[in-house]
Amino acid sequence: MGVVRIDHVGIAVKSVESVSPAIRNLFTPPPAEVEEVEDQGVRAVSYRAGEGSIEFLESLDESSPVGRYLAQRGSGIHHIALEVDDLETTLADLKREGVVLIDEKPRAGAGGKRIAFIHPKSAGGILIELCDRPA
Amino acid sequence: MGVVRIDHVGIAVKSVESVSPAIRNLFTPPPAEVEEVEDQGVRAVSYRAGEGSIEFLESLDESSPVGRYLAQRGSGIHHIALEVDDLETTLADLKREGVVLIDEKPRAGAGGKRIAFIHPKSAGGILIELCDRPA
Repeated sequence: MGVVRIDHVGIAVKSVESVSPAIRNLFTPPPAEVEEVEDQGVRAVSYRAGEGSIEFLESLDESSPVGRYLAQRGSGIHHIALEVDDLETTLADLKREGVVLIDEKPRAGAGGKRIAFIHPKSAGGILIELCDRPA
Repeated sequence: MGVVRIDHVGIAVKSVESVSPAIRNLFTPPPAEVEEVEDQGVRAVSYRAGEGSIEFLESLDESSPVGRYLAQRGSGIHHIALEVDDLETTLADLKREGVVLIDEKPRAGAGGKRIAFIHPKSAGGILIELCDRPA
């Protein structure tokens, strides 16, 4: 039971081009995944880093969560996603212990993963995504 | 040449206790490392997550970088640390390509690592630490 690895770190940027090409070139191979996630109003560019990845998020829509984050705080590390071994059981356990969840049940994420967010008010002000891979 | 893995994610919090115990208990084993890094004015508590870790940083000193971050922005994900295979060569390459570095040469970090920070102005506003392990 518990955290298996850092799945990804989600970074809100005005544009991926604001990160120096020399820094982006440290990641090999170049990003395989450029996704427009329309219901979240973002364009996501993922760079592999060992067993996890760094995901740059550009806002496509000022009223999206990432768009509002950028307007209020500017560029920043928006969330951290942790893979757990059993998301459904983990969410039930957290809820029973009084943790405030944005998603009480897993929902579909990118790449066949199941995801759920913990409310920052239970996580020291940090936005934490939990995910797992269906068996 | 390049990024090997996410070494850690550094999270600035008022106190580790502001993160629900139920969330901290998802990390097994419990944190082995609680370090007071006096010259950086922080207390760091590291939770293992696969090949990387999550590092909660409490400010011991309001004038430290983490203390100023907390005063200005509140809790948040402060930096991301990426392990590269050869820090010295990586820094020289980045500098030659015009990337602004806080540390142009590796300096000693925790746990025998060598570390260096990239200036956020070259990294889309994000604070990135690079590190490696001496051979």
